[in-house]
Amino acid sequence: MNGAESLVHTLLKGGVDVCFTNPGTSEMHFVAALDKIEGMRCILCLFEGVVSGAADGYARMTGKPAATLLHLGPGLGNALANLHNAKKARSPIVNVVGEHATYHIQYNTPLTSDIAGIARPVSHWVKSAPDAASVGPFGAEAIAAARTAPGQIATLILPADTAWGDNAVVGTVPAIPEREAVDGKSIEEAAAALKGGQALLLLGAGALFEAPLEAAGTIAAATGCNVMAEGMNTRLQRGAGRLPINRIPYPVPQALEVLKPYRRIVLVGAGRPAGFFAYPGMPSLLAPEGCEIITLARPEHDCAAALAALADAVGAKRGTAKLQTLARPPRPTGAITLDSIAAAIGALLPENAIVADESVTTGRGFYPLTAGAPAHDWLQNRGGSIGLGVPLATGAAVACPDRKVVCLEGDGSGMYTLQALWTQARENLDVTTLVFANRSYNILKGELANVGAGNPGPRAHDMLTLDRPTLDWVDIAASMGVEAEKAHDADELCRAFERGLAVKGPYLVEVVI
Amino acid sequence: MNGAESLVHTLLKGGVDVCFTNPGTSEMHFVAALDKIEGMRCILCLFEGVVSGAADGYARMTGKPAATLLHLGPGLGNALANLHNAKKARSPIVNVVGEHATYHIQYNTPLTSDIAGIARPVSHWVKSAPDAASVGPFGAEAIAAARTAPGQIATLILPADTAWGDNAVVGTVPAIPEREAVDGKSIEEAAAALKGGQALLLLGAGALFEAPLEAAGTIAAATGCNVMAEGMNTRLQRGAGRLPINRIPYPVPQALEVLKPYRRIVLVGAGRPAGFFAYPGMPSLLAPEGCEIITLARPEHDCAAALAALADAVGAKRGTAKLQTLARPPRPTGAITLDSIAAAIGALLPENAIVADESVTTGRGFYPLTAGAPAHDWLQNRGGSIGLGVPLATGAAVACPDRKVVCLEGDGSGMYTLQALWTQARENLDVTTLVFANRSYNILKGELANVGAGNPGPRAHDMLTLDRPTLDWVDIAASMGVEAEKAHDADELCRAFERGLAVKGPYLVEVVI
Repeated sequence: MNGAESLVHTLLKGGVDVCFTNPGTSEMHFVAALDKIEGMRCILCLFEGVVSGAADGYARMTGKPAATLLHLGPGLGNALANLHNAKKARSPIVNVVGEHATYHIQYNTPLTSDIAGIARPVSHWVKSAPDAASVGPFGAEAIAAARTAPGQIATLILPADTAWGDNAVVGTVPAIPEREAVDGKSIEEAAAALKGGQALLLLGAGALFEAPLEAAGTIAAATGCNVMAEGMNTRLQRGAGRLPINRIPYPVPQALEVLKPYRRIVLVGAGRPAGFFAYPGMPSLLAPEGCEIITLARPEHDCAAALAALADAVGAKRGTAKLQTLARPPRPTGAITLDSIAAAIGALLPENAIVADESVTTGRGFYPLTAGAPAHDWLQNRGGSIGLGVPLATGAAVACPDRKVVCLEGDGSGMYTLQALWTQARENLDVTTLVFANRSYNILKGELANVGAGNPGPRAHDMLTLDRPTLDWVDIAASMGVEAEKAHDADELCRAFERGLAVKGPYLVEVVI
Repeated sequence: MNGAESLVHTLLKGGVDVCFTNPGTSEMHFVAALDKIEGMRCILCLFEGVVSGAADGYARMTGKPAATLLHLGPGLGNALANLHNAKKARSPIVNVVGEHATYHIQYNTPLTSDIAGIARPVSHWVKSAPDAASVGPFGAEAIAAARTAPGQIATLILPADTAWGDNAVVGTVPAIPEREAVDGKSIEEAAAALKGGQALLLLGAGALFEAPLEAAGTIAAATGCNVMAEGMNTRLQRGAGRLPINRIPYPVPQALEVLKPYRRIVLVGAGRPAGFFAYPGMPSLLAPEGCEIITLARPEHDCAAALAALADAVGAKRGTAKLQTLARPPRPTGAITLDSIAAAIGALLPENAIVADESVTTGRGFYPLTAGAPAHDWLQNRGGSIGLGVPLATGAAVACPDRKVVCLEGDGSGMYTLQALWTQARENLDVTTLVFANRSYNILKGELANVGAGNPGPRAHDMLTLDRPTLDWVDIAASMGVEAEKAHDADELCRAFERGLAVKGPYLVEVVI
């Protein structure tokens, strides 16, 4: 058995049976091993940013890592932005990065680079296999690292001679530590804080699933506290039958206003509230002065158990959470507006949908009108690097073939990783994408003013607009085998969205704003 | 004056007056400064891999750095693969990477990352400005670093508060060291080696311009040595009136065969010949055993002066170089083949064209049939990370608005950074792109066999083919405002290529192979 074969066996044995890939010469033995060994689903992507974004979406929906297969340092570089996003989302991923044969690296040929150096800023675990015999055991270590709570990025560098070398062995994944439980003292402190009044229970990673959210709802009923989520969330279960929950707004002035009433904030899987960016004359931290911040559970803790224990501690009663009833908005008519888009999504979102949301400015107001839609999962960009949405939807659709994925994508951000549409067509993934074509980096128009840089003059304005020439998303989708149409008003949007939802496969609607 | 304004002034004062950009919030003061200060041409790209590839093309054609403007660590990450290629091409680039305000970094908000860590593997110089007063001087240092021979990547990290902070000053670029001259002893050794017979003069960076090539031709005439270039070159001046020159072939068996006759190899700006990749049972180094390798000049030396001195030392005479005569192949007819494509390019390439070549397997035989075309520059991918071609052509066209740029691009590699077409349309850049649609990662089919992995089975084959679904490059071009057509035979190819050459602006031909 050669090293590449031992790695495929090790991955499969460790429960990693999907590989998003863009291979090159140094990965050819891994590719060859796929033919010899049954069980690995290998999904080709035409750009590595699609690979890593898809692996993130897959991990969020399965809770387990996919593998990626990347071509040396620059291939890893292309995957880097979405690995950053996955790292911030705490998604487990096992990267396999090909490298020159160990003896060849010294000759500094064109593709030679510092792969470990490129990997480190976006990885929790980085190792390079020195020989074929190490490949299986290192692969097993990588799986364990990726699966360590709350989810990590593990990068295994695989020199070509370790892939083609013989006498390799299949690795066994070591025991993965259980999530740490929070101690009784923390629970008492959190309970006391919430009972003290003017309190907020702020939820993040691990606390945004149906059950812990309901527990949070009972805590709110028992203590009078409010419950909120961070601004951007890895996976939030919402809709009818679940606890309705608001997020901290993105604009700093609004966030300050929302948090102003609180004297105590209890964190469960969430971080201390801070602005996405800094702005001149505005604070970085968003809680009011003197507000006490109590960390009940960090992301690596068992946040669901922590909330259950907290519910007991405050004497919360089952069945007291105020859950969302099914309440869709009416189907919108008239012009395309931010509200009519939100209404169209709220009116039509199918039961059990997965929403991959990178709608940026267009989507800031989507929550209220979609809150009463049937139960669904909402995924956001935790790392803030645009170009995640379409790949994220791709990976979520691979993970959950029986669920409809709805991708909400800005035109500016969608352009980063548009190649994901081809993978959707190739794998016939059930994704309906709405591209919001405002033909600008609209967020930056606001940010230019927010940072005190004033109203844009012509040259600055030119750097924020995408309308010269206009991008045609119907052509883009068609070029990669995805059916698409444009929507110019709310009626067209609803009909187009319905057509997309009725297709079992990819579909794209360009929403002309 | 704020820090951002001081940086724009410093760049302009240092001769950096083109900025390829994809800005975000943390770069808004730089963008605002563009309106206040005349003289900086700012070119928007819809993906950062386009930014860095265009900066590379610009640098190769002007010999001076452009600036890039990138959004924090992930934006730099997206630029990384083409920065790797630029570093290997020794192209000077000044990266300006926005960062959170210095006091905001500690809160680890979504976009926080180790920017310097991401920058280091692809940069010769990395610094972060601690305050507004440092921005100008650091910018000047960055320019000097970029301009240090043979050309370097300098990355300046610009925290937002250093951009908006006041009391900034314009920096002055320190003196840039002259290129080192080679010493007399090296020249004597090289002369003796070439006179010894069975000798090869192997040229690389800095030696592939018209004048040093002609000097090399006179050396060949005087000593009987052969002259060759490395396999992939930053910029090679060729065509009628110039020294015709072959390159070391990419396939290792062919390269070994080509180098077999030589007992002595003299390097001028070139590295010791080594395989692009390692293969089982094949050597990494390509020169025959016992062959003496003499380094006359490294890339950081003045390679043109070294060749001139060498010509004197061997008693070479002006006018003895065997220069290429104008000899175009006949216009091809019949089916699209690798030869008919080469003939079409050779028959039609305009005088003084710039060829940005990322044609991968399709283009391996382009050299012979284009050798007798009118004088032109030929640019290749020195770093081997695909996705450079279209951005490289974009930057070359910005650098040389009066020259026709011809981009030769594979379909697989073109998909990496297709967003560059939008910038070509927006700036009306004079680029004719031929996309060679073989609908596969054709190179990998050969590489799979070369690494001993055998003939691909169905799953491996599936990872190397792009025909399910077929990519439509006419739709891709149209979606971004670039006129395009398909060519199915050599006649259609010639007519389409002529139409593209006749347009003053971007045009794309999908060559269906």
